Amino acid sequence: MSEIDGPDRYVVGVDFGTLSGRALVVRVRDGAEVGTAVHEYRHGVIEAALPDGGPSLPPDWALQDPEDYRDVLREAVPAALAAARVDPATVIGIGTDFTACTVLPTLADGTPLCELPELRHRPHAWVKLWKHHAAQPQADRINALAHERGEPWIGRYGGKISAEWQFAKGLQILDEDPEVYRRAERLVEAADWIVWELCGVQTRNACTAGYKGIRQDGRYPSPDYLAALDPAFADFVTKLDGPLLPLGDRAGVLGARAAAWTGLPEGIAVAVGNVDAHVTAASAQALRPGRLVAIMGTSTCHVLNGTHPAEVPGMCGVVDGGISPGAWGYEAGQSGVGDIFGWFVRHAAPAGLDSHERLTELAAAQPVGAHGLVALDWWNGNRSLLVNHDLSGLVVGLTLATRPADVYRALLEATAYGTRMIVEAFAEAGVPVDDLVVAGGLTSNRLLMQIYADVTNRPLGIIGSAQGPALGSAIHAAVAAGAYPTVHEASAAMGRVDEAVYRPIPANVRAYDALYAEYRALHDHFGRGASDVMLRLRAIRNAALDAPAEPAASTLEVVG
Amino acid sequence: MSEIDGPDRYVVGVDFGTLSGRALVVRVRDGAEVGTAVHEYRHGVIEAALPDGGPSLPPDWALQDPEDYRDVLREAVPAALAAARVDPATVIGIGTDFTACTVLPTLADGTPLCELPELRHRPHAWVKLWKHHAAQPQADRINALAHERGEPWIGRYGGKISAEWQFAKGLQILDEDPEVYRRAERLVEAADWIVWELCGVQTRNACTAGYKGIRQDGRYPSPDYLAALDPAFADFVTKLDGPLLPLGDRAGVLGARAAAWTGLPEGIAVAVGNVDAHVTAASAQALRPGRLVAIMGTSTCHVLNGTHPAEVPGMCGVVDGGISPGAWGYEAGQSGVGDIFGWFVRHAAPAGLDSHERLTELAAAQPVGAHGLVALDWWNGNRSLLVNHDLSGLVVGLTLATRPADVYRALLEATAYGTRMIVEAFAEAGVPVDDLVVAGGLTSNRLLMQIYADVTNRPLGIIGSAQGPALGSAIHAAVAAGAYPTVHEASAAMGRVDEAVYRPIPANVRAYDALYAEYRALHDHFGRGASDVMLRLRAIRNAALDAPAEPAASTLEVVG
Repeated sequence: MSEIDGPDRYVVGVDFGTLSGRALVVRVRDGAEVGTAVHEYRHGVIEAALPDGGPSLPPDWALQDPEDYRDVLREAVPAALAAARVDPATVIGIGTDFTACTVLPTLADGTPLCELPELRHRPHAWVKLWKHHAAQPQADRINALAHERGEPWIGRYGGKISAEWQFAKGLQILDEDPEVYRRAERLVEAADWIVWELCGVQTRNACTAGYKGIRQDGRYPSPDYLAALDPAFADFVTKLDGPLLPLGDRAGVLGARAAAWTGLPEGIAVAVGNVDAHVTAASAQALRPGRLVAIMGTSTCHVLNGTHPAEVPGMCGVVDGGISPGAWGYEAGQSGVGDIFGWFVRHAAPAGLDSHERLTELAAAQPVGAHGLVALDWWNGNRSLLVNHDLSGLVVGLTLATRPADVYRALLEATAYGTRMIVEAFAEAGVPVDDLVVAGGLTSNRLLMQIYADVTNRPLGIIGSAQGPALGSAIHAAVAAGAYPTVHEASAAMGRVDEAVYRPIPANVRAYDALYAEYRALHDHFGRGASDVMLRLRAIRNAALDAPAEPAASTLEVVG
Repeated sequence: MSEIDGPDRYVVGVDFGTLSGRALVVRVRDGAEVGTAVHEYRHGVIEAALPDGGPSLPPDWALQDPEDYRDVLREAVPAALAAARVDPATVIGIGTDFTACTVLPTLADGTPLCELPELRHRPHAWVKLWKHHAAQPQADRINALAHERGEPWIGRYGGKISAEWQFAKGLQILDEDPEVYRRAERLVEAADWIVWELCGVQTRNACTAGYKGIRQDGRYPSPDYLAALDPAFADFVTKLDGPLLPLGDRAGVLGARAAAWTGLPEGIAVAVGNVDAHVTAASAQALRPGRLVAIMGTSTCHVLNGTHPAEVPGMCGVVDGGISPGAWGYEAGQSGVGDIFGWFVRHAAPAGLDSHERLTELAAAQPVGAHGLVALDWWNGNRSLLVNHDLSGLVVGLTLATRPADVYRALLEATAYGTRMIVEAFAEAGVPVDDLVVAGGLTSNRLLMQIYADVTNRPLGIIGSAQGPALGSAIHAAVAAGAYPTVHEASAAMGRVDEAVYRPIPANVRAYDALYAEYRALHDHFGRGASDVMLRLRAIRNAALDAPAEPAASTLEVVG
C-alpha cells in the first residue's frame, strides 16, 4: 500500500467491557500495538440498587451508567495516546466495540433517559447490561408467540430469542414501566450509542441489528406480531430502527466534543459500532468460512463465518454481514467457562490447592479418563444449544478417592465438551468448522488448550494479541478511515494468529470420544426434557429463598 | 430381680472394630458403664503387603492379624477393669461382638492358618476383613448361578450375595490358593473364633450364620449348587458348619488361658458371638418390631426386627433370630456416610470452612431446598438397595452461587434420602418401620439428626450410650450368665435410649418430599439401568490407571 512509504499512521480501538473500557493505539501498516490504557467504570455493574441512594433492584437485574462509558473516552484514550508516545495528529480513525446486547432508552437526540432528573430514579431508564436477566418472562412470550405464528425469523436464532436481547428488554420496559417506554424515543444498542456520542450521527450496525434486534432479510418482526405481544408494543421497531451500516463503514467523523474528550483530531473517521466478540474475528485473522473463533474468558463466545444461511438449532443467531461484510456470521456461546474454574478455586478447593496453577499442574499429570468423572458445565446456565439460564451444573463419578485436581480437570473438560457440542451442531447443520482460533484470557492455560484440541479433534490456533477486541476495533477504524479497502484486507495486514499451536493427540482424541459420549448423553438427558430435575431444583430454590424467613433454629429444633 | 438385693455384679462387653477393640465394664442391674479401655490393633488393616516383608497385596484386599484380636483381650479388658475399679470376682460373664463378615481359615482346633510358619506368607491364610472387596468375581458367579437355578435362599438376601460374605471369600480362596483352601479345615467367622479362643468351644452364632453364611430355614446352599460353582467347592459347608446357637446363649465358660489374658475369673459365662451392628439393637432398646436402628459412622448399618420373613429387594438379608431370638432380623446398609462428609471437609472445602462444625453451622442456617442441590450419596458405592460397589457420587444443581455449606448440606441430606429409600423398601415389602433409633458417632450432629427425622418423617431416638456395641455385648453376657432370662429383658434393664429426641417438622417434611422425589428419580436413573454412565466411567478410570504410564507431558505437548 502506498501509505507504507509515508510516515506511520495510527488508529485507536476502544473496547467497552463489562467492568472497564480499554483504549489501544495501533499502527495502521502492521497492526503493531503501541500503547494502551484501561479505565474502570465508576459504577461497574449496578445490581443491588441505583446509585446515590436510589431504589433497590430485583434479582437478575444488571444496569450501567452511560457516563461511565464517556469516562473511558475521557480517560483511557488520552492515556493510551500518552503511553504510545504518538502524535495525535497521526491518528486517522477510531473504532469501538461493546458488550451486547447492552441497550439504553434515550430521547430522539440520544440523551439517555437516566440522565433526565425526573427519570433518574426509575430503574428502567438506565442502561440494561447484556447480563440483565430479568426479561425472561418477556422472552418466553416472544418465543411462544413466534412459534405459534410460525414467524420466519425464529429459525435464524436457533429457535429461541434470548432474554438478553433488545425485544425482550424492550418489552420488559413496556410491561413494568410504561411511562419510561413511552418517553423512550429510541432504544439504542450501546455499541451504536457510543458511536453517536463520538460523531453526533445516529447509525445502526449490521451486527447488533441482526443478532440482538431480529433484523433479517431487511425486515424486522411485523407490527402484527408485535401488536399480538402487546398492542402498545406495535411501534417498537420505530424506536430501534436507524440508518443501517455494514461493519467497517465510516459512521461519521469525530465531533468537537468527543475530540476534546479524547485528545484526537476532530474530523477523523469513526467506525460503525461493533461487538467485542465479533470484532475479534478480524484481529484473529479468522474471517474465512470454517474457522471458528472462541473468545474464552469468564464465558465463551463463538463466532464463525459461513457461506450461506443455515438454521442451526440452539445457536445464538446467523446474520448476513454479522461478522464481516459478504459472509453469514454465526454466533454461539457458553455462559460459564472461566467463571466456573474461578468458582472452583474460590469455593471448592482446599487450602494449598486453591490456585489455578497448582490445580492445573496436578491435573496435567493425569492420563485422560483417570479421574472417572464427567461434569455438565452449566454453573451459569446454558446459552447454546439449550438456551436455558435455569440449567445448572452436575458432576458424576465422585468417590472417596476423588481429589480436587480431578474435579478441576473434569470442569476444564466439561467446557471443552460444551464447545464440541456447538461445533458438531454447526457441522450437522451444514456449517463446517475446520479449525479453531482461541482468544481471551484463558489462552494462557496450556492444559486447557490441549484439552480443547483433543476434545474437538481440531487444530487450535491462538490469537497473537492479548487485546483482541481493541485490536479488532482498531482494524475497523483503519477500514473506516480508508487505509484498507475491506475488513478482510485490514485483518490480513493488522491481525495476528499463531496457527495450529495445539494439535490433537490421537490417543487423547480416542479417549475423549468415549467421555464425550457420556457428556452428550447427560447433556440430552438433563437438557432436553428427559429429566427436568434442574429446572425443578431451581424453582424449589427460588421458592425457598422467597419464603418469609424462618428462624434458622427451626431446622435445629430439638424436643426433649 | 432378686440380684438387686445382693452386691453389684458386672459383665464385660468387648467390641472388635475395624482398627481397634474396646472393652466395657457394665453393671448388671442397670447397665451403668463403669469403666472402658481401647486397644489399637498393631497391624490395623493390612492392605498393601503382609507384615514383616511379606508379599504385596492386590487392590481391594483387606486383611487382619488374629493375634491383634488376642491383644485386645490381654490389654483392653484388664485396663477396663482397672478403670472401673471393680473386683474381677464380681464379673459374671463376658460377651463379644465383631465386624462381619470377617473370616479366617483355621485348622480343626481353631489355629489360624496364618500362624502356621509354612503358610504365613500366603495372603489367603490370613483373616479377610469385612471390607476385603477382592471377591467380587466370585460373588458375581454365586449370584448368577443362584438366579439361574432359582435357588430359594437368594430372595432372603435381597437378590444378591455380597462379595464381602463367607461364600464369596471362601470361593476366592479356592480359586486363587487351592492349597490354603484344602488346609483350611474350618472357615470361621471372627465373631465365632474369638469366642472359641475365650472358652475353647467351637460354636456358630445364628446371626453371622444367617447373614453371612447363607443359612436359611435350617439349611445351607446344597452341595449340588456348590459343585456347580466348582466341584472342589461342594464340601464348603463342612468347613463352615458348627454347633449353631441363638444370640444370648452361653457358648461356654472362660478357659484358663483366656482368664489369664483378661484377669477375669475362670469359669464365668462366655456369650455366643455377635456382630457390632446387630448387638447395638439391644443396647438401644430397639428389639421390638418396627424400630429401625441406624448405626451411623463412616458407613451406616440398619438393623430392624420384623415379625415374619419378607423378601425385600436389595436388602442385605433377613435371618430368623438374626438380631434377637424370636424375631426375623433385617439388615441393610449404606456404604458411605460419615466417610463422605469427611471427604468433603478434607478435599472439597476451602480454607476457613474446612471443619464439620463451621459447615454445619452455616448449613443449619438455610431453609430446606434453598441450596438448589441434590446429591447421590454413592461416593463408596451402594450397599442397599442397589448392591453395587461401582456406583459413584453425583451432585446436581451447582451454580456460581453455590457455596461450600450448600454442598455439605446436600451431602448430609443425600445420606438421609438413602436411608429413606431403605425404610420405604422395607415398608413396601410389608416390614413396617415406625421409628428410628440412631447410634454411633454421627449422633452428635444435631442438624444431621433433624434432617433424618424430617426426610424419613419419623421420630428419631438417640441411643443413650456412646459405646453401643460394647454395651450390647455386655447385655448378651448378662443373659449368657443367667442374670436375665432373655435378651429382651436384659435390653430393657441395661439398654438406654432417649426416645423421639428429634421429631419431624411438618414444613420440612413437605419440602423434603419434593427433594426426595428428585433423589429417587436420579437413584433409579443411574442405579437401575437407565443410565450406566457410572459403571462406564469406572471402567474408563480403571483402564486409564492400568495403562502403561505415559509421560505427563503428553497431555501438554505443544507443537510450534
